Amino acid sequence: MRVSNYLLSTQKETPANAEVISHQLMLRAGFIRRNASGLYSWLPSGLRVLRKVEAIVREEMNNAGAVEILMPLVQPADLWAETGRWEKFGPELLRFQDRHNRDFVLGPTHEEVITDLVRKEVSSYKQLPLNLYQVQTKFRDEVRPRFGVMRAREFLMKDAYTFHLSQECLDNTYAQMHNAYSKIFERMGLAFRPVIADTGSIGGSASHEFHVLANSGEDLIAYSNGSDYAANIEKAETAEPTTTLAAPTQEMTLVDTPNAKTIAELVEQFDVEITKTVKTLIVKGATEEAPLVALIVRGDHELNELKADKHELVAAPLEFATDAEIKDAIGASTGSLGPVGLTMPVIIDKDVAVMSDFAAGANQDGKHHFGINWERDLPMAQAMDLRNVVEGEPTPDGKGTYEFARGIEVGHIFQLGTNYSEAMGATVLDENGKAKEMLMGCYGIGVSRIVAAAIEQNHDDRGMMLPATLAPFTVGILPMNMHKSHRVKEMAEQLYKDLSAEGIEILLDDRKERPGVMFNDMELIGLPHVVVIGDRNIDAGVFEYKNRRTGEKQEIPFDQIVDFIKSSIKG
Amino acid sequence: MRVSNYLLSTQKETPANAEVISHQLMLRAGFIRRNASGLYSWLPSGLRVLRKVEAIVREEMNNAGAVEILMPLVQPADLWAETGRWEKFGPELLRFQDRHNRDFVLGPTHEEVITDLVRKEVSSYKQLPLNLYQVQTKFRDEVRPRFGVMRAREFLMKDAYTFHLSQECLDNTYAQMHNAYSKIFERMGLAFRPVIADTGSIGGSASHEFHVLANSGEDLIAYSNGSDYAANIEKAETAEPTTTLAAPTQEMTLVDTPNAKTIAELVEQFDVEITKTVKTLIVKGATEEAPLVALIVRGDHELNELKADKHELVAAPLEFATDAEIKDAIGASTGSLGPVGLTMPVIIDKDVAVMSDFAAGANQDGKHHFGINWERDLPMAQAMDLRNVVEGEPTPDGKGTYEFARGIEVGHIFQLGTNYSEAMGATVLDENGKAKEMLMGCYGIGVSRIVAAAIEQNHDDRGMMLPATLAPFTVGILPMNMHKSHRVKEMAEQLYKDLSAEGIEILLDDRKERPGVMFNDMELIGLPHVVVIGDRNIDAGVFEYKNRRTGEKQEIPFDQIVDFIKSSIKG
Repeated sequence: MRVSNYLLSTQKETPANAEVISHQLMLRAGFIRRNASGLYSWLPSGLRVLRKVEAIVREEMNNAGAVEILMPLVQPADLWAETGRWEKFGPELLRFQDRHNRDFVLGPTHEEVITDLVRKEVSSYKQLPLNLYQVQTKFRDEVRPRFGVMRAREFLMKDAYTFHLSQECLDNTYAQMHNAYSKIFERMGLAFRPVIADTGSIGGSASHEFHVLANSGEDLIAYSNGSDYAANIEKAETAEPTTTLAAPTQEMTLVDTPNAKTIAELVEQFDVEITKTVKTLIVKGATEEAPLVALIVRGDHELNELKADKHELVAAPLEFATDAEIKDAIGASTGSLGPVGLTMPVIIDKDVAVMSDFAAGANQDGKHHFGINWERDLPMAQAMDLRNVVEGEPTPDGKGTYEFARGIEVGHIFQLGTNYSEAMGATVLDENGKAKEMLMGCYGIGVSRIVAAAIEQNHDDRGMMLPATLAPFTVGILPMNMHKSHRVKEMAEQLYKDLSAEGIEILLDDRKERPGVMFNDMELIGLPHVVVIGDRNIDAGVFEYKNRRTGEKQEIPFDQIVDFIKSSIKG
Repeated sequence: MRVSNYLLSTQKETPANAEVISHQLMLRAGFIRRNASGLYSWLPSGLRVLRKVEAIVREEMNNAGAVEILMPLVQPADLWAETGRWEKFGPELLRFQDRHNRDFVLGPTHEEVITDLVRKEVSSYKQLPLNLYQVQTKFRDEVRPRFGVMRAREFLMKDAYTFHLSQECLDNTYAQMHNAYSKIFERMGLAFRPVIADTGSIGGSASHEFHVLANSGEDLIAYSNGSDYAANIEKAETAEPTTTLAAPTQEMTLVDTPNAKTIAELVEQFDVEITKTVKTLIVKGATEEAPLVALIVRGDHELNELKADKHELVAAPLEFATDAEIKDAIGASTGSLGPVGLTMPVIIDKDVAVMSDFAAGANQDGKHHFGINWERDLPMAQAMDLRNVVEGEPTPDGKGTYEFARGIEVGHIFQLGTNYSEAMGATVLDENGKAKEMLMGCYGIGVSRIVAAAIEQNHDDRGMMLPATLAPFTVGILPMNMHKSHRVKEMAEQLYKDLSAEGIEILLDDRKERPGVMFNDMELIGLPHVVVIGDRNIDAGVFEYKNRRTGEKQEIPFDQIVDFIKSSIKG
């Protein structure tokens, strides 16, 4: 490609309203342009990267035995009514009417459409398993689209759906897809991590997210430094406590603590370690018998709301009791709450169950108990994993300790079970001729988001440093002064021809621009290899080569340049 | 691909509500499924064809120097307000509001978005010309979607837009795109014809349509049997008359013709040739001075409304006068109208200007004039090309005579001029630093429609016969009884492996189906080459080969099959 035939559209200034670096760089490098909130046009350089992402995804899905189809973006509302999502889905689901006043949606996902398709096409277990995917435009009417294509309203996604007769078959395919996803992100040259994820509102039994690691990531990932175990912080499990419950050594005392409304204040004002304190949180209960429930974690730990939500006595989604409700039920305010003498159900974190001689609010304003011991001062409560893990503690597989990293979710795989096939009556006849609901899996990759995530992970002060498999071009040719020097022009064109013949993608900057401008553009869009050709080089018989990632410069004799570039690409 | 991993989904019955053969076959062959009126899912076989069409289009656009971008389907309404199309565009333009009550459309086309993009990115003539294209999903809320993907609401289109400083530059690019389009349809192996087209409501100065020829086509194309000249019937020009005006040989007589209300009745009841009669049609005028205008064509010719519309005295769009208006103005009814003594402007077809001794209504009910001659009986009227061409008459280039064919429009190229750049203020600075509106061209290809058009042109009683470049797979392997015969299975798998190694796309039917069912499916989806393997063949040491298009069957020795298939594919 010659820049003169291209739309490079780089800009020097960091654009206003672009908060994250990938958004800034994608605007500056002429990758995207905003049409309206959350709506973007992909300019040539950006689209080249997008298409490379798409191609790798497609190839690995095909290699894994998935079969490509294409469903429409515009979907009839009646399918969404069948699953109840026409009502349940929030305003992210863009609903509209056509010219005949029929209801439609712009599809944010395709579970309904694919389940409808498969229930019509498949009638026998012999046609299963089935693994269908598409690479398709989706629309989600985000209340606050942001970070460019990272959270756009219209975006490109790969979504796959699988159908099975047995859980074993679903498990097998789920493992294959997990494997295919790993291959996809490996081929893209990205540092990533598959993590155990919450199944969220879609439901189902198993779920993994694939995160591209980047300091700017919105998600916090807890991973083991000694094994493959990794989970979204919401889902990361604590190991069993390493200590056991010790015998009491202190009497329980009631102490005036008028100025200690928080754990920090308590620790500061009294001679007590934070690991000897507990936090008591009152939440709404799920049953009439227990309208309020107390959740207790150690003073230095944080409640994990998703974990608490799983308890049958806790209302889902988790809701904290109001100050008035607490005062009314306990007679004390937050800041003075504790387990001793509580009449509501008490659920404690596993680490709280091995605490002795600990301090807690006394359920009287301005008073705490010190030296509390289970069984002696109050009955042992029901214990469960109720908190977020912390860095440095052991992972549940016993093979290392937790480290944290930030990640950008670019893939998500789910076992849906029969959620959709039950709602929509998607059955097949099994070996005995009996109708059985199909088990389903779904598997998404945010194709356009990957471009942004890859840039978040791969950039420096001068611009993007995309891996070679994703860069818009592999080699940049920078002829100096080619509009005046015939031999520079000739040399540049010859190199363009020679490298093109090897199937290498090249951007030749044939503009009448200053060398500095041209070089900055090449670095901004992050071409992995740049070759400079000037009169001086021709006199010396060498090309100047610069590697974008290492910054290393080399002089390469004319007759070695093609082989040098070829071996540089192979790495 | 093995059928067991695939979604073949063929059906024997011709589906109800599918009027045209391509729609019927695409449903039967499992190419598409209907989601709602005008909305379709592409199943695997259909999508494979669609992607092949897309790939050829993309490659040839790239070869022609066009640069790919991707604009959103959802477009902000304010851009459409700028060009006035927010008001002017009919209900085909689907308008909706997002969650913040802002107006948007689902883009049926992208002139506004691209003009907005380019006016922001391009400021100097040095950046021109620019040729940008996309392959993208469009939506057009057709009042009556029909013929499957031939006229769907959501469809895949390639649209390109070019920007120029000069008409000469636009002409050059237009010619390049014309050429690229021809290459595209040639590579697809389709019989097609570029035809001169009306520029319609989009306006602009030049326009060609590309038609895939098929008996079922909605468009009538008039083409020369001696040259490249071809035009949509609306636009096909007549040659200059070969005869000149002869001297009168008859007196003009007024004759009672009470039972001749039509040309056919006149010719039948009186001794007059149809080529000696004229039809007089009264239409609304464009000016206050002439509220009605008379248009006259020879009795055996048909008025071409689009041609008539171009005359400055004729109201556009063309509207016929009512019976009451005619009676009021002329004092006679249709059926007795003629040019003699008319007080309104008279415009005649060029062929009428060379008629002598002709017959026409006398503008008195039940009466005709015979033996009318120009200048002697009435002044010569203004003559122009006012009629549809007929088969067998000379083409305007003098290089042949007209033949007719039916076609399906699959491509359309337009010179837009400055229509959009004026409305949206899309200017660049020219060589003298003066702001100048860019000239634009636009170039569309109906990617999804091509699949249907190709099938309309290539099918027989047994199913599709798509050209090899478009067929979903190149070779079908049909093992007979492979679930019982181990050696058949082994042989089939080996052939699958050997042909795959050559990069050939194969569908191996590994179902437990009767041979007839399997063979019919292969013929229905139209795989160009089918190889049958059964125990009988293994005994004989030969594969059975059948060519889909020629129907020719051959026995090919085992060791020659790969070379045979390779040479068959090359044709």
